Amino acid sequence: MIHPTALVAPEARLGRNVSVGPFTIIHPNVEIGDDSEIGAHCEIGHPTARAEGRPLVIGAGALIRSYSLFYQGSSFGERLVTGHRVTVREGVRAGENLQIGTLSDIQGTCAIGNHVRFHSNVHIGQHATVGNYVWIFPYVVLTNDPHPPSDVMLGATVEDFAAVATMSVILPGVTVGRGALVGAHSSVNRDVAADMVVAGSPAKVVCRTEEIKLRDGSGRPAYPWRRHFSRGYPDAAVKAWLEEFGAGSRNPTSEGKQP
Amino acid sequence: MIHPTALVAPEARLGRNVSVGPFTIIHPNVEIGDDSEIGAHCEIGHPTARAEGRPLVIGAGALIRSYSLFYQGSSFGERLVTGHRVTVREGVRAGENLQIGTLSDIQGTCAIGNHVRFHSNVHIGQHATVGNYVWIFPYVVLTNDPHPPSDVMLGATVEDFAAVATMSVILPGVTVGRGALVGAHSSVNRDVAADMVVAGSPAKVVCRTEEIKLRDGSGRPAYPWRRHFSRGYPDAAVKAWLEEFGAGSRNPTSEGKQP
Amino acid sequence: MIHPTALVAPEARLGRNVSVGPFTIIHPNVEIGDDSEIGAHCEIGHPTARAEGRPLVIGAGALIRSYSLFYQGSSFGERLVTGHRVTVREGVRAGENLQIGTLSDIQGTCAIGNHVRFHSNVHIGQHATVGNYVWIFPYVVLTNDPHPPSDVMLGATVEDFAAVATMSVILPGVTVGRGALVGAHSSVNRDVAADMVVAGSPAKVVCRTEEIKLRDGSGRPAYPWRRHFSRGYPDAAVKAWLEEFGAGSRNPTSEGKQP
Repeated sequence: MIHPTALVAPEARLGRNVSVGPFTIIHPNVEIGDDSEIGAHCEIGHPTARAEGRPLVIGAGALIRSYSLFYQGSSFGERLVTGHRVTVREGVRAGENLQIGTLSDIQGTCAIGNHVRFHSNVHIGQHATVGNYVWIFPYVVLTNDPHPPSDVMLGATVEDFAAVATMSVILPGVTVGRGALVGAHSSVNRDVAADMVVAGSPAKVVCRTEEIKLRDGSGRPAYPWRRHFSRGYPDAAVKAWLEEFGAGSRNPTSEGKQP
Repeated sequence: MIHPTALVAPEARLGRNVSVGPFTIIHPNVEIGDDSEIGAHCEIGHPTARAEGRPLVIGAGALIRSYSLFYQGSSFGERLVTGHRVTVREGVRAGENLQIGTLSDIQGTCAIGNHVRFHSNVHIGQHATVGNYVWIFPYVVLTNDPHPPSDVMLGATVEDFAAVATMSVILPGVTVGRGALVGAHSSVNRDVAADMVVAGSPAKVVCRTEEIKLRDGSGRPAYPWRRHFSRGYPDAAVKAWLEEFGAGSRNPTSEGKQP
Repeated sequence: MIHPTALVAPEARLGRNVSVGPFTIIHPNVEIGDDSEIGAHCEIGHPTARAEGRPLVIGAGALIRSYSLFYQGSSFGERLVTGHRVTVREGVRAGENLQIGTLSDIQGTCAIGNHVRFHSNVHIGQHATVGNYVWIFPYVVLTNDPHPPSDVMLGATVEDFAAVATMSVILPGVTVGRGALVGAHSSVNRDVAADMVVAGSPAKVVCRTEEIKLRDGSGRPAYPWRRHFSRGYPDAAVKAWLEEFGAGSRNPTSEGKQP
């Protein structure tokens, strides 16, 4: 399961049934849970003086795709899934079932909840706080410096169930509230209240999320999205959503969505 | 021509005069045409259950630069050229002479015509339809989900000869018409008519493309761009454009342009 | 110091105390100064016909992180530092102490001064001119084609001490003046005067930089930023700034800032 060209430090603690692809480097200060797969051309546990002595801990059932790079000094719950070429610095503390899309750049020193989805090419600045069941779409940047360059750092916050659409910037210290939606190509310079839609540059309030209709011909509201969308979430959560919202449909077939 | 460190599956079908760089992986389900060059650190034919049994087919005369990654289950016509670090998922059906710039991310399940140019860091969402002779510039995203996250997918369309400038987003289901121009840093939420210029966020009509003058001192119109620009296109096409528009100049020297 | 899996051309001229990581390729036409470190999975001195015979010259004390790619035909002063996965084409002429962040794409044929900071995922188009002590933040693009595609190239210019915040586009031929600030998510289509703040799409003048207050409770002005920020700059420069502005604080602790 360890490809003969891989360079795996003998001190690295790999669980049972862990596979490592060709040309991948695993540094000593790494702990990877059972039943995990590390693709080709990865570098896992890149050393940094800023996290000296702190391991990289990756929970069981992980899938890390090719060319991905993780520094030492972060921890991830079970079932981490990454795309290709993700870069993850030290000091990340993430829950279970995180997905990090291709080319995403997690700058480190941030807190990420459970069941979070970062699509491709997402940039998470330091001191960000990301809740549970959050969606962040391509080319979104969570910033932290209110007057760059400076030594003041005000991380951005995205609360549970919120979604930030493509090519939007969350400015330093801003909170996107629970269940809110930031439209594509927006610049968000003030807090967004729960369940509100904002859009524009600078972003302005558009409407309540429940006013957006699902474009599937049903006339149902598109938000809260957990009324109709449950792909990849744990059964217990989906069951609770069904009970909360009634007969939400489960369409397990869509892939590669990206707003 | 196969570097001794490359890992080439014996089942892969490589044409005559195909070279493979160091540390590159070629999986079994791959077919590469004659006279092609695969750079270093690539991964070609990455397996995925979603495209099981379907090969990656790359036409003759391809140049795939280092760190590039292609999944199985796509097909490309002759003379494909890529920059470095491109990521191409399954289900792409592309014509000849496609260029995909460095860091671009083609999410798969999309149709791309002939002689298309994707500059660096372009993101093509699933279900996109891209015509012939299209230009897409850096940090442009073609989206597909009208109310993310959901299972509804409305791909974007960019028709023949259209150009989408840097850092613009094409929203789900939107069509950019033949020969149209989307200005830089725009968010396009409705269809763009043929030969029109739109810009802004949300994008508004600016003028007809023919009203933009070429900034080369000649006073000629800048569009249709095939009046004056022909670098890299086939002789037959260029000859037809000359006949259509008269004495269009051919300046073969410029490189690395990027709007 | 040369990892046994690295492929280092015997013609490459490496100084004393140069280390080279696993799976890294160093081509013949390369000159690297003393006390430099090249990470894993890099490709240094990629050949190109456009720079035939011209070497890649990297000054002493360089740190080039993993997956980075440099073409032949550029030169860098001492103490170059890169993040991961940077791509640097031929024809770059850069001063000392340049920092190029992860995923940045320097398209070549451009001039870069001393002590410049490119944060992650910066795109520098050809014919750009970047002064000294400049800051460019993530997802910023410096463009060059006023009516794409064409053969006209008007590079962008960013003068000394200026800062361009996240997700902004500098349009072709535009100059961002000395000490100016471009706010996040802006599209800059005309020159920005020295020490002015612009923001928006298209960008408009907001105020003078000195009117922005530092959000550290001190009430001090945030600009010129060298009043309060000096991390990583040479002692002589910092001393001069202290004399120019009085008791500027030096906070050496912040890391990973990103606006």
